[in-house]
Amino acid sequence: MLTKSSSLMRLVGELKKLPGIGERTALRLAFHLLKTPRNMTALAESLCEVRDLVHPCPVCFAITETDPCSICAGNRDAAMICVVENSQDLMALERSNAYHGMYHVLEGCLSPLNGVGPDCLRITELVERIKDGAVKEVLIATNFTVEGEATALYLKKVLKQLDLKITRLAHGIPLGSDIEFVDAATVQWALQGRSEL
Amino acid sequence: MLTKSSSLMRLVGELKKLPGIGERTALRLAFHLLKTPRNMTALAESLCEVRDLVHPCPVCFAITETDPCSICAGNRDAAMICVVENSQDLMALERSNAYHGMYHVLEGCLSPLNGVGPDCLRITELVERIKDGAVKEVLIATNFTVEGEATALYLKKVLKQLDLKITRLAHGIPLGSDIEFVDAATVQWALQGRSEL
Repeated sequence: MLTKSSSLMRLVGELKKLPGIGERTALRLAFHLLKTPRNMTALAESLCEVRDLVHPCPVCFAITETDPCSICAGNRDAAMICVVENSQDLMALERSNAYHGMYHVLEGCLSPLNGVGPDCLRITELVERIKDGAVKEVLIATNFTVEGEATALYLKKVLKQLDLKITRLAHGIPLGSDIEFVDAATVQWALQGRSEL
Repeated sequence: MLTKSSSLMRLVGELKKLPGIGERTALRLAFHLLKTPRNMTALAESLCEVRDLVHPCPVCFAITETDPCSICAGNRDAAMICVVENSQDLMALERSNAYHGMYHVLEGCLSPLNGVGPDCLRITELVERIKDGAVKEVLIATNFTVEGEATALYLKKVLKQLDLKITRLAHGIPLGSDIEFVDAATVQWALQGRSEL
Protein backbone atom coordinates (compact mmCIF):
# COMPACT_ATOMS: atom_id res chain seq x y z
CA MET A 1 0.00 0.00 0.00
CA LEU A 2 1.14 3.53 -0.72
CA THR A 3 0.97 6.34 1.78
CA LYS A 4 -0.10 9.93 1.10
CA SER A 5 3.53 10.97 0.86
CA SER A 6 4.44 8.38 -1.77
CA SER A 7 5.77 9.24 -5.22
CA LEU A 8 2.50 8.06 -6.81
CA MET A 9 0.50 10.49 -4.69
CA ARG A 10 2.92 13.27 -5.64
CA LEU A 11 2.35 12.35 -9.32
CA VAL A 12 -1.44 12.45 -8.73
CA GLY A 13 -0.95 15.89 -7.16
CA GLU A 14 0.99 17.10 -10.20
CA LEU A 15 -1.61 15.70 -12.64
CA LYS A 16 -4.41 17.38 -10.67
CA LYS A 17 -2.84 20.77 -11.44
CA LEU A 18 -3.73 20.27 -15.13
CA PRO A 19 -6.95 21.92 -16.37
CA GLY A 20 -10.02 19.68 -16.33
CA ILE A 21 -8.30 16.90 -14.35
CA GLY A 22 -9.64 16.11 -10.87
CA GLU A 23 -8.58 13.66 -8.15
CA ARG A 24 -10.14 10.56 -9.75
CA THR A 25 -8.98 11.24 -13.29
CA ALA A 26 -5.48 11.97 -11.98
CA LEU A 27 -5.48 8.65 -10.10
CA ARG A 28 -6.70 6.82 -13.20
CA LEU A 29 -3.99 8.44 -15.36
CA ALA A 30 -1.30 7.65 -12.75
CA PHE A 31 -2.31 3.97 -12.60
CA HIS A 32 -2.48 3.82 -16.40
CA LEU A 33 1.06 5.21 -16.62
CA LEU A 34 2.21 2.75 -13.96
CA LYS A 35 1.18 -0.11 -16.29
CA THR A 36 3.17 1.36 -19.20
CA PRO A 37 6.64 2.34 -17.88
CA ARG A 38 7.85 3.03 -21.42
CA ASN A 39 5.14 5.67 -21.96
CA MET A 40 5.96 7.12 -18.54
CA THR A 41 9.62 7.59 -19.54
CA ALA A 42 8.65 8.99 -22.95
CA LEU A 43 6.25 11.48 -21.34
CA ALA A 44 8.86 12.60 -18.79
CA GLU A 45 11.47 13.05 -21.54
CA SER A 46 8.97 14.94 -23.71
CA LEU A 47 8.19 17.31 -20.85
CA CYS A 48 11.89 18.07 -20.25
CA GLU A 49 12.46 18.51 -23.97
CA VAL A 50 9.59 21.00 -24.33
CA ARG A 51 10.76 22.90 -21.23
CA ASP A 52 14.33 23.14 -22.57
CA LEU A 53 13.63 23.81 -26.26
CA VAL A 54 10.38 25.74 -26.63
CA HIS A 55 10.49 29.51 -26.10
CA PRO A 56 8.89 32.65 -27.61
CA CYS A 57 10.29 33.82 -30.97
CA PRO A 58 12.27 37.07 -30.35
CA VAL A 59 10.51 38.71 -33.32
CA CYS A 60 6.85 37.62 -33.23
CA PHE A 61 6.62 35.94 -29.77
CA ALA A 62 5.06 32.75 -31.16
CA ILE A 63 6.36 29.64 -29.43
CA THR A 64 9.25 28.12 -31.35
CA GLU A 65 12.37 25.97 -31.11
CA THR A 66 14.44 28.15 -33.47
CA ASP A 67 15.57 31.83 -33.44
CA PRO A 68 13.69 33.37 -35.18
CA CYS A 69 10.72 31.05 -35.74
CA SER A 70 10.10 29.31 -39.08
CA ILE A 71 7.44 31.88 -40.07
CA CYS A 72 9.66 34.92 -39.34
CA ALA A 73 12.61 33.22 -41.07
CA GLY A 74 10.50 31.84 -43.94
CA ASN A 75 9.49 33.27 -47.29
CA ARG A 76 6.31 35.03 -46.14
CA ASP A 77 4.66 38.33 -47.06
CA ALA A 78 6.43 40.89 -44.83
CA ALA A 79 3.92 43.64 -45.77
CA MET A 80 1.24 42.09 -43.56
CA ILE A 81 1.18 41.29 -39.84
CA CYS A 82 -1.59 39.27 -38.23
CA VAL A 83 -1.98 40.04 -34.51
CA VAL A 84 -3.19 37.10 -32.39
CA GLU A 85 -3.65 36.61 -28.65
CA ASN A 86 -1.61 33.42 -28.38
CA SER A 87 0.20 30.67 -30.30
CA GLN A 88 -2.85 28.40 -30.27
CA ASP A 89 -4.77 31.01 -32.30
CA LEU A 90 -1.77 31.31 -34.64
CA MET A 91 -1.87 27.54 -35.20
CA ALA A 92 -5.63 27.68 -35.94
CA LEU A 93 -5.01 30.38 -38.57
CA GLU A 94 -2.12 28.39 -40.07
CA ARG A 95 -4.37 25.30 -40.35
CA SER A 96 -6.69 27.29 -42.66
CA ASN A 97 -3.82 27.62 -45.21
CA ALA A 98 -5.32 30.99 -46.27
CA TYR A 99 -2.83 33.40 -44.70
CA HIS A 100 0.69 33.94 -45.99
CA GLY A 101 1.90 36.98 -44.03
CA MET A 102 3.72 37.40 -40.73
CA TYR A 103 2.31 37.10 -37.21
CA HIS A 104 2.58 38.93 -33.91
CA VAL A 105 1.55 37.17 -30.71
CA LEU A 106 0.30 39.54 -27.96
CA GLU A 107 0.65 36.83 -25.27
CA GLY A 108 -2.80 37.62 -23.90
CA CYS A 109 -5.57 40.19 -24.24
CA LEU A 110 -6.63 43.27 -22.28
CA SER A 111 -8.40 42.20 -19.12
CA PRO A 112 -8.49 44.96 -16.46
CA LEU A 113 -10.35 42.71 -14.00
CA ASN A 114 -7.43 40.27 -14.08
CA GLY A 115 -4.88 43.09 -13.94
CA VAL A 116 -3.81 42.70 -17.60
CA GLY A 117 -3.23 46.17 -19.02
CA PRO A 118 -1.57 47.22 -22.32
CA ASP A 119 1.90 47.04 -20.69
CA CYS A 120 1.49 43.30 -20.08
CA LEU A 121 1.00 42.63 -23.81
CA ARG A 122 3.57 42.77 -26.65
CA ILE A 123 2.10 46.01 -28.06
CA THR A 124 5.30 48.12 -27.82
CA GLU A 125 7.14 45.41 -29.73
CA LEU A 126 4.39 45.39 -32.38
CA VAL A 127 4.66 49.16 -32.89
CA GLU A 128 8.47 48.85 -33.12
CA ARG A 129 8.15 46.12 -35.78
CA ILE A 130 5.74 48.23 -37.82
CA LYS A 131 7.99 51.31 -37.59
CA ASP A 132 11.09 49.29 -38.61
CA GLY A 133 9.55 47.23 -41.39
CA ALA A 134 7.66 47.58 -44.63
CA VAL A 135 4.32 46.70 -43.10
CA LYS A 136 1.32 47.83 -45.14
CA GLU A 137 -1.50 46.03 -43.33
CA VAL A 138 -2.17 44.85 -39.78
CA LEU A 139 -4.87 42.19 -39.49
CA ILE A 140 -6.19 42.08 -35.93
CA ALA A 141 -7.20 38.50 -35.12
CA THR A 142 -7.86 38.73 -31.39
CA ASN A 143 -10.74 36.55 -30.21
CA PHE A 144 -14.35 37.67 -30.64
CA THR A 145 -14.87 37.88 -26.88
CA VAL A 146 -15.38 41.03 -24.82
CA GLU A 147 -11.66 41.14 -23.94
CA GLY A 148 -10.58 40.33 -27.50
CA GLU A 149 -12.81 43.05 -28.98
CA ALA A 150 -11.52 45.55 -26.40
CA THR A 151 -7.95 44.62 -27.33
CA ALA A 152 -8.78 45.09 -31.04
CA LEU A 153 -10.22 48.56 -30.38
CA TYR A 154 -7.21 49.51 -28.25
CA LEU A 155 -4.84 48.33 -31.00
CA LYS A 156 -6.79 50.36 -33.59
CA LYS A 157 -6.35 53.45 -31.43
CA VAL A 158 -2.60 52.84 -31.01
CA LEU A 159 -1.96 51.98 -34.67
CA LYS A 160 -4.15 54.56 -36.44
CA GLN A 161 -1.44 57.26 -36.22
CA LEU A 162 0.83 55.00 -38.33
CA ASP A 163 0.33 54.94 -42.10
CA LEU A 164 -1.24 51.50 -42.62
CA LYS A 165 -4.41 49.58 -43.28
CA ILE A 166 -5.94 48.03 -40.17
CA THR A 167 -8.24 45.08 -40.74
CA ARG A 168 -10.18 42.65 -38.59
CA LEU A 169 -11.14 39.01 -39.25
CA ALA A 170 -14.61 38.82 -40.83
CA HIS A 171 -17.55 38.17 -38.55
CA GLY A 172 -17.94 34.61 -39.71
CA ILE A 173 -16.61 33.31 -36.45
CA PRO A 174 -19.45 33.20 -33.88
CA LEU A 175 -19.30 35.89 -31.21
CA GLY A 176 -18.05 34.75 -27.80
CA SER A 177 -16.09 31.78 -29.13
CA ASP A 178 -12.34 31.10 -29.28
CA ILE A 179 -10.57 31.07 -32.68
CA GLU A 180 -8.58 28.10 -31.46
CA PHE A 181 -11.65 25.84 -31.59
CA VAL A 182 -13.20 26.99 -34.88
CA ASP A 183 -12.97 24.61 -37.87
CA ALA A 184 -10.44 25.40 -40.62
CA ALA A 185 -13.09 26.21 -43.28
CA THR A 186 -14.74 28.90 -41.15
CA VAL A 187 -11.32 30.39 -40.36
CA GLN A 188 -10.56 30.45 -44.10
CA TRP A 189 -13.86 32.22 -44.78
CA ALA A 190 -13.17 34.75 -42.04
CA LEU A 191 -9.68 35.44 -43.47
CA GLN A 192 -11.07 36.11 -46.97
CA GLY A 193 -13.90 38.33 -45.77
CA ARG A 194 -11.78 40.49 -43.43
CA SER A 195 -13.18 44.01 -43.00
CA GLU A 196 -11.57 47.43 -42.47
CA LEU A 197 -11.57 48.50 -38.85
CA MET B 1 5.54 28.45 -35.33
CA LEU B 2 6.13 24.83 -34.47
CA THR B 3 6.32 22.04 -37.01
CA LYS B 4 4.79 18.57 -36.71
CA SER B 5 8.17 17.17 -35.65
CA SER B 6 8.65 19.64 -32.80
CA SER B 7 9.05 18.66 -29.16
CA LEU B 8 5.62 20.13 -28.35
CA MET B 9 3.95 17.88 -30.93
CA ARG B 10 5.83 14.89 -29.47
CA LEU B 11 4.50 15.89 -26.02
CA VAL B 12 0.97 16.12 -27.48
CA GLY B 13 1.50 12.63 -28.94
CA GLU B 14 2.55 11.27 -25.55
CA LEU B 15 -0.41 12.92 -23.75
CA LYS B 16 -2.80 11.47 -26.37
CA LYS B 17 -1.76 7.96 -25.28
CA LEU B 18 -3.45 8.56 -21.90
CA PRO B 19 -7.00 7.23 -21.46
CA GLY B 20 -9.76 9.75 -22.21
CA ILE B 21 -7.38 12.33 -23.71
CA GLY B 22 -7.79 13.22 -27.38
CA GLU B 23 -5.90 15.53 -29.74
CA ARG B 24 -7.51 18.78 -28.53
CA THR B 25 -7.29 18.02 -24.82
CA ALA B 26 -3.65 16.98 -25.28
CA LEU B 27 -2.92 20.27 -27.05
CA ARG B 28 -4.67 22.21 -24.30
CA LEU B 29 -2.70 20.39 -21.58
CA ALA B 30 0.58 20.92 -23.46
CA PHE B 31 -0.05 24.66 -23.80
CA HIS B 32 -1.08 24.86 -20.15
CA LEU B 33 2.19 23.15 -19.12
CA LEU B 34 4.14 25.49 -21.39
CA LYS B 35 2.82 28.42 -19.35
CA THR B 36 3.95 26.81 -16.07
CA PRO B 37 7.54 25.54 -16.55
CA ARG B 38 7.82 24.76 -12.82
CA ASN B 39 4.83 22.39 -13.01
CA MET B 40 6.28 20.82 -16.15
CA THR B 41 9.56 20.05 -14.34
CA ALA B 42 7.70 18.77 -11.28
CA LEU B 43 5.54 16.49 -13.43
CA ALA B 44 8.56 15.11 -15.30
CA GLU B 45 10.40 14.47 -12.03
CA SER B 46 7.30 12.85 -10.52
CA LEU B 47 6.99 10.50 -13.49
CA CYS B 48 10.64 9.42 -13.22
CA GLU B 49 10.31 8.98 -9.46
CA VAL B 50 7.20 6.78 -9.79
CA ARG B 51 8.87 4.71 -12.53
CA ASP B 52 12.00 4.18 -10.40
CA LEU B 53 10.41 3.67 -6.98
CA VAL B 54 6.99 2.04 -7.35
CA HIS B 55 6.88 -1.76 -7.77
CA PRO B 56 4.68 -4.67 -6.64
CA CYS B 57 5.14 -5.84 -3.03
CA PRO B 58 6.88 -9.27 -3.11
CA VAL B 59 4.33 -10.64 -0.59
CA CYS B 60 0.91 -9.22 -1.56
CA PHE B 61 1.66 -7.68 -5.00
CA ALA B 62 0.13 -4.32 -4.07
CA ILE B 63 2.08 -1.39 -5.52
CA THR B 64 4.58 -0.06 -3.00
CA GLU B 65 7.86 1.78 -2.52
CA THR B 66 9.10 -0.49 0.29
CA ASP B 67 9.85 -4.24 0.58
CA PRO B 68 7.49 -5.56 1.86
CA CYS B 69 4.71 -2.94 1.68
CA SER B 70 3.49 -1.03 4.73
CA ILE B 71 0.43 -3.31 5.13
CA CYS B 72 2.46 -6.56 4.99
CA ALA B 73 5.07 -5.06 7.35
CA GLY B 74 2.49 -3.39 9.60
CA ASN B 75 0.59 -4.57 12.65
CA ARG B 76 -2.39 -6.07 10.80
CA ASP B 77 -4.54 -9.17 11.38
CA ALA B 78 -2.54 -11.96 9.68
CA ALA B 79 -5.44 -14.43 10.06
CA MET B 80 -7.36 -12.76 7.25
CA ILE B 81 -6.48 -12.09 3.61
CA CYS B 82 -8.59 -9.91 1.34
CA VAL B 83 -8.16 -10.80 -2.35
CA VAL B 84 -8.54 -7.87 -4.76
CA GLU B 85 -8.07 -7.50 -8.51
CA ASN B 86 -5.74 -4.50 -8.36
CA SER B 87 -4.17 -1.87 -6.12
CA GLN B 88 -6.90 0.69 -6.92
CA ASP B 89 -9.49 -1.67 -5.34
CA LEU B 90 -7.18 -2.13 -2.34
CA MET B 91 -7.04 1.64 -1.91
CA ALA B 92 -10.87 1.86 -2.07
CA LEU B 93 -11.13 -0.78 0.70
CA GLU B 94 -8.51 1.04 2.80
CA ARG B 95 -10.45 4.29 2.45
CA SER B 96 -13.44 2.61 4.19
CA ASN B 97 -11.30 2.15 7.35
CA ALA B 98 -13.30 -1.01 8.09
CA TYR B 99 -10.75 -3.70 7.20
CA HIS B 100 -7.70 -4.52 9.32
CA GLY B 101 -6.36 -7.72 7.75
CA MET B 102 -3.84 -8.44 4.99
CA TYR B 103 -4.36 -8.14 1.23
CA HIS B 104 -3.50 -10.12 -1.88
CA VAL B 105 -3.58 -8.42 -5.27
CA LEU B 106 -4.36 -10.78 -8.18
CA GLU B 107 -3.13 -8.21 -10.77
CA GLY B 108 -6.26 -8.76 -12.89
CA CYS B 109 -9.24 -11.07 -13.19
CA LEU B 110 -10.09 -14.13 -15.27
CA SER B 111 -10.97 -13.02 -18.79
CA PRO B 112 -10.69 -15.88 -21.33
CA LEU B 113 -11.70 -13.58 -24.22
CA ASN B 114 -8.66 -11.40 -23.49
CA GLY B 115 -6.43 -14.44 -22.96
CA VAL B 116 -6.22 -14.00 -19.18
CA GLY B 117 -6.30 -17.46 -17.56
CA PRO B 118 -5.57 -18.49 -13.94
CA ASP B 119 -1.82 -18.71 -14.71
CA CYS B 120 -1.73 -14.96 -15.47
CA LEU B 121 -3.03 -14.11 -11.99
CA ARG B 122 -1.20 -14.33 -8.62
CA ILE B 123 -3.26 -17.38 -7.53
CA THR B 124 -0.32 -19.77 -6.97
CA GLU B 125 1.28 -17.15 -4.73
CA LEU B 126 -2.00 -16.77 -2.81
CA VAL B 127 -2.21 -20.54 -2.17
CA GLU B 128 1.44 -20.56 -1.04
CA ARG B 129 0.77 -17.69 1.39
CA ILE B 130 -2.25 -19.49 2.85
CA LYS B 131 -0.32 -22.76 3.23
CA ASP B 132 2.61 -20.99 4.91
CA GLY B 133 0.68 -18.69 7.20
CA ALA B 134 -1.91 -18.74 9.92
CA VAL B 135 -4.72 -17.63 7.61
CA LYS B 136 -8.22 -18.42 8.91
CA GLU B 137 -10.34 -16.44 6.45
CA VAL B 138 -10.05 -15.38 2.82
CA LEU B 139 -12.33 -12.49 1.84
CA ILE B 140 -12.77 -12.42 -1.92
CA ALA B 141 -13.20 -8.79 -3.01
CA THR B 142 -13.00 -9.12 -6.79
CA ASN B 143 -15.29 -6.74 -8.66
CA PHE B 144 -19.00 -7.53 -9.08
CA THR B 145 -18.63 -7.83 -12.84
CA VAL B 146 -18.95 -11.01 -14.92
CA GLU B 147 -15.15 -11.50 -14.89
CA GLY B 148 -14.87 -10.63 -11.19
CA GLU B 149 -17.63 -13.07 -10.22
CA ALA B 150 -16.02 -15.81 -12.38
CA THR B 151 -12.69 -15.14 -10.66
CA ALA B 152 -14.40 -15.38 -7.23
CA LEU B 153 -15.99 -18.74 -8.13
CA TYR B 154 -12.65 -20.04 -9.46
CA LEU B 155 -10.88 -18.94 -6.27
CA LYS B 156 -13.57 -20.66 -4.18
CA LYS B 157 -12.93 -23.90 -6.12
CA VAL B 158 -9.15 -23.64 -5.65
CA LEU B 159 -9.30 -22.67 -1.95
CA LYS B 160 -12.07 -24.97 -0.70
CA GLN B 161 -9.65 -27.91 -0.20
CA LEU B 162 -7.75 -25.79 2.32
CA ASP B 163 -9.11 -25.52 5.87
CA LEU B 164 -10.45 -21.95 5.93
CA LYS B 165 -13.48 -19.74 5.79
CA ILE B 166 -14.09 -18.19 2.38
CA THR B 167 -16.17 -15.02 2.33
CA ARG B 168 -17.30 -12.49 -0.27
CA LEU B 169 -18.05 -8.77 0.08
CA ALA B 170 -21.78 -8.21 0.76
CA HIS B 171 -24.03 -7.35 -2.15
CA GLY B 172 -24.32 -3.73 -1.20
CA ILE B 173 -22.15 -2.73 -4.08
CA PRO B 174 -24.26 -2.43 -7.25
CA LEU B 175 -23.78 -5.27 -9.74
CA GLY B 176 -21.68 -4.41 -12.78
CA SER B 177 -19.79 -1.59 -11.09
CA ASP B 178 -16.12 -1.23 -10.10
CA ILE B 179 -15.21 -1.21 -6.37
CA GLU B 180 -12.71 1.50 -7.14
CA PHE B 181 -15.51 4.02 -7.83
CA VAL B 182 -17.86 3.18 -4.95
CA ASP B 183 -18.13 5.68 -2.06
CA ALA B 184 -16.41 4.79 1.23
CA ALA B 185 -19.68 4.35 3.20
CA THR B 186 -21.02 1.72 0.79
CA VAL B 187 -17.69 -0.11 0.88
CA GLN B 188 -17.82 -0.07 4.71
CA TRP B 189 -21.37 -1.50 4.61
CA ALA B 190 -20.29 -4.20 2.16
CA LEU B 191 -17.32 -5.15 4.40
CA GLN B 192 -19.55 -5.53 7.50
CA GLY B 193 -22.25 -7.54 5.68
CA ARG B 194 -19.84 -9.98 3.97
CA SER B 195 -21.40 -13.40 3.31
CA GLU B 196 -20.03 -16.97 3.25
CA LEU B 197 -19.31 -18.20 -0.27
